[in-house]
Amino acid sequence: MNQPSKPAAIKHALSVTRAADFAAWYQDVITEADLAEESGVRGCMVIKPWGYGIWERIQAVMDARIKAAGVQNCYFPLFIPLSFFAKEAEHVEGFAKEMAVVTHHRLIGDGKGGLVPDPEAKLEEPLVVRPTSETVIGAAMARWIQSWRDLPLLTNQWANVVRWEMRTRMFLRTSEFLWQEGHTAHADKADAMAETLRALEMYRSFSEDVLAMPVVAGEKPENERFPGAAATYSIEAMMQDGKALQAGTSHYLGTGFAEAAGIRYQDKEGQQTLCHTTSWGVSTRLIGGVIMTHGDDDGLRVPPQVAPYQIVIVPILRDNDEDEAVIAYCRELLAELNALRAFGEPVRAHLDLRAIKSTTKRWGWVKKGAPVIVEVGGRDVAGGNVSWLRRDRLYNDAGKLAATIDSRFNFVAEAEALITGIQASLHAEATTRRDANITRGLTSLDELAAHFAEGNVYPGWVELGWSRPTGAELDAVVATLKGHKLTIRNTPMDAPDPSGQCLFTGKPAVETIHVARAY
Amino acid sequence: MNQPSKPAAIKHALSVTRAADFAAWYQDVITEADLAEESGVRGCMVIKPWGYGIWERIQAVMDARIKAAGVQNCYFPLFIPLSFFAKEAEHVEGFAKEMAVVTHHRLIGDGKGGLVPDPEAKLEEPLVVRPTSETVIGAAMARWIQSWRDLPLLTNQWANVVRWEMRTRMFLRTSEFLWQEGHTAHADKADAMAETLRALEMYRSFSEDVLAMPVVAGEKPENERFPGAAATYSIEAMMQDGKALQAGTSHYLGTGFAEAAGIRYQDKEGQQTLCHTTSWGVSTRLIGGVIMTHGDDDGLRVPPQVAPYQIVIVPILRDNDEDEAVIAYCRELLAELNALRAFGEPVRAHLDLRAIKSTTKRWGWVKKGAPVIVEVGGRDVAGGNVSWLRRDRLYNDAGKLAATIDSRFNFVAEAEALITGIQASLHAEATTRRDANITRGLTSLDELAAHFAEGNVYPGWVELGWSRPTGAELDAVVATLKGHKLTIRNTPMDAPDPSGQCLFTGKPAVETIHVARAY
Repeated sequence: MNQPSKPAAIKHALSVTRAADFAAWYQDVITEADLAEESGVRGCMVIKPWGYGIWERIQAVMDARIKAAGVQNCYFPLFIPLSFFAKEAEHVEGFAKEMAVVTHHRLIGDGKGGLVPDPEAKLEEPLVVRPTSETVIGAAMARWIQSWRDLPLLTNQWANVVRWEMRTRMFLRTSEFLWQEGHTAHADKADAMAETLRALEMYRSFSEDVLAMPVVAGEKPENERFPGAAATYSIEAMMQDGKALQAGTSHYLGTGFAEAAGIRYQDKEGQQTLCHTTSWGVSTRLIGGVIMTHGDDDGLRVPPQVAPYQIVIVPILRDNDEDEAVIAYCRELLAELNALRAFGEPVRAHLDLRAIKSTTKRWGWVKKGAPVIVEVGGRDVAGGNVSWLRRDRLYNDAGKLAATIDSRFNFVAEAEALITGIQASLHAEATTRRDANITRGLTSLDELAAHFAEGNVYPGWVELGWSRPTGAELDAVVATLKGHKLTIRNTPMDAPDPSGQCLFTGKPAVETIHVARAY
Repeated sequence: MNQPSKPAAIKHALSVTRAADFAAWYQDVITEADLAEESGVRGCMVIKPWGYGIWERIQAVMDARIKAAGVQNCYFPLFIPLSFFAKEAEHVEGFAKEMAVVTHHRLIGDGKGGLVPDPEAKLEEPLVVRPTSETVIGAAMARWIQSWRDLPLLTNQWANVVRWEMRTRMFLRTSEFLWQEGHTAHADKADAMAETLRALEMYRSFSEDVLAMPVVAGEKPENERFPGAAATYSIEAMMQDGKALQAGTSHYLGTGFAEAAGIRYQDKEGQQTLCHTTSWGVSTRLIGGVIMTHGDDDGLRVPPQVAPYQIVIVPILRDNDEDEAVIAYCRELLAELNALRAFGEPVRAHLDLRAIKSTTKRWGWVKKGAPVIVEVGGRDVAGGNVSWLRRDRLYNDAGKLAATIDSRFNFVAEAEALITGIQASLHAEATTRRDANITRGLTSLDELAAHFAEGNVYPGWVELGWSRPTGAELDAVVATLKGHKLTIRNTPMDAPDPSGQCLFTGKPAVETIHVARAY
């Protein structure tokens, strides 16, 4: 694994390291950074303040970009009648399997002190808790669109959705999750495809710039398309165990959904014409991506742009006369920092005044991944100084905590540069790792199998050319890959034209794909 | 009704007036202002961009106030297992009636091209779609709280909830609605009661300052308490038909929920002690309150603080050479306005460039209730002027649209004052109406009955003293009031001590209540 090496002597804050057990480490970060926890409700998590704060930051920045693209937020019903679902055959096929179904609208006592659904209150038509909203939004679009003047129709909603997952993992795959879903209708394919790719690029740049998470944007193979879509695009991020995480998708839906829902417009020649529609979404899964991109053996490292607090001030109190002066000094520092701006927004600094030990606070913020942790004791106050830690470079070469003592004036003067520097550094570190772990040049299935054999603990992704098979030929390729627990991630947007033969079919390679294990 | 009189000649934008049919007028405003519509899903509405934009503004301002009070946002599961509900007996009693119940987690083909819940996928324990989250958040609090150091625990979530309502009305009573629910735990009654009243005061000041909607904050009578609460407080707003709208509630829950969920802490003496909890919420119902407080016969009037756009610029285009200059002029004006600040935030101005007639645009924004509508034609450009309408004073004394022509420079210079003036004016108008329609001094049940008899088309509210009966005596009072379609709204926080006898019991009056018809 491509990690900076550290002296073995360091006793890290987490009880399990990435190298020892990546899956256990992931759960440990979520617990120790206080991001989320099991709720006692099957497959559903409680998102705690620090985790939800990251989601609020993701929402705020993404929502501004969505609105800047002329998309308007709406809210559509949680429940979708079965009949809506039955309209789009391919879509049902893909989704019909595991969904939460509401069948009753009343509870009644069971005569034994418990409650049961009231048999008298059975719904005539069961309602599905939305797994996604194409059908119900399509019905609205059919009402809203009359003429070419109404196009493009660009809508989005922030909502909870439910997919009854058999195996769940916090943030990555939960029965209920939070997301945004964009839904748009257009006059023709070109305009719909432009919107599909605009959303994809919005997700790519958001991941890179805001989450500091390098991704590869590209088209998913036919077998990985959203049910009913004509084309599906994704952004794929490389986690620190080398697996891929699909972090966002954008779909060109063709006219299939429009036909099912009756989304038609009168064109400039007076003809009734089917719309071309798109949908695109990102979810709380992004937080899982942030954890597995930036976390280390001391916990999470939150990119400053989405950190609920970018700088946390921990006063070192001794229960003596000095304490009052320390707190006053910290409050002044807090005000100075919050008056600054970074990334075009006010800086978010926080003063931690909880009635617990300052070392407990320090390590708590290390595990939570606050980008900068400032400690202020009596001696700092006397000298006009602060002592600060940069969460992304926690240890010095000797394996000790790399605290910097500087004047308060200098620290405040350089705080914006510090925060933006951490953002850039996290992105650079993740990009270097991603780029170092994409293997090219494999020329046979045997080489591919060997690359992903158990002996190679960090195979990363493989980039190769293929003949873009379809139908049964593609099914065979998918089955072969599945035998090695591999999947095709996508065809990168900017990939060079391949040369040579397809590993799978022996035909000339026509496009480049990434193959990897995935979440 | 206490409306400014207008010449009869005015042809208003809506097809139905408040005076003719208030209920039909309410629906007409929702349609014509493009706020929301029926979704085709029973009791659920689609909130359209202008309506959702108002909700986003409510969320933004309220969320900042919630956070400023030290409350942290979380997210809890949509689904609540039946067993969670059975724990708090009184609470179940109050809520068990009408809830959406998930009983299956999979659909399957019915062999006839349709879908049905898969009998093989019946849940062992049905899940209730949350009608409110005390039970599931209580379970989390029991995990999170160990010692007095963890108190107070102050949480909030923004979420959708479902209550299976028999008769629904958009924004006021829908099966699914959006809200925030605050949930807090405290060491003792005094601290919990202080939080209950802090939330109440937050809602009162928010309604007055932000929604320009005067309210009366007070305690609900015993029979109107939230199921399981020890005390319930509300804000009550007077709608233009004189009915009351309960616009927000705050509950002191005592130790009942803590006992049911096991929310205990170790106090400073080392004893395990039950927490005292609170909950408080406002919902999309507030939008119904805004409509019925500020709407007029031309549509909605949105208070500037929650208007998605405070100033809308409509260019008057003639499909000729002048158009380009008009649009350029409008863009400059837009930039000038958006650089201003009002209410401590950037001004929200919008340039409407849709390909429809400018008069259609003007009347569309009148019906939507944009606070200021600016029209710019070629002559305005030549003269460096703008023509603007103030939505809250749409007509002059002659019954004509009260457009003001002023220099662009003056308009921009005075825009902040204009916006804040409209906010204040809407509040003053509603407060005057509210105050004029609270009747005092009734001394018998007969007088009360006469006051609310059919002949009095605008009875408003009645303020009277009562003996604060409880139990069966209170039930009798409630039944008497119900005979006149009346309810007790609340005991105003700042009401003077009453004198004289209770109308209902003949005993000495001990507190003041408001009696009214209500939504």
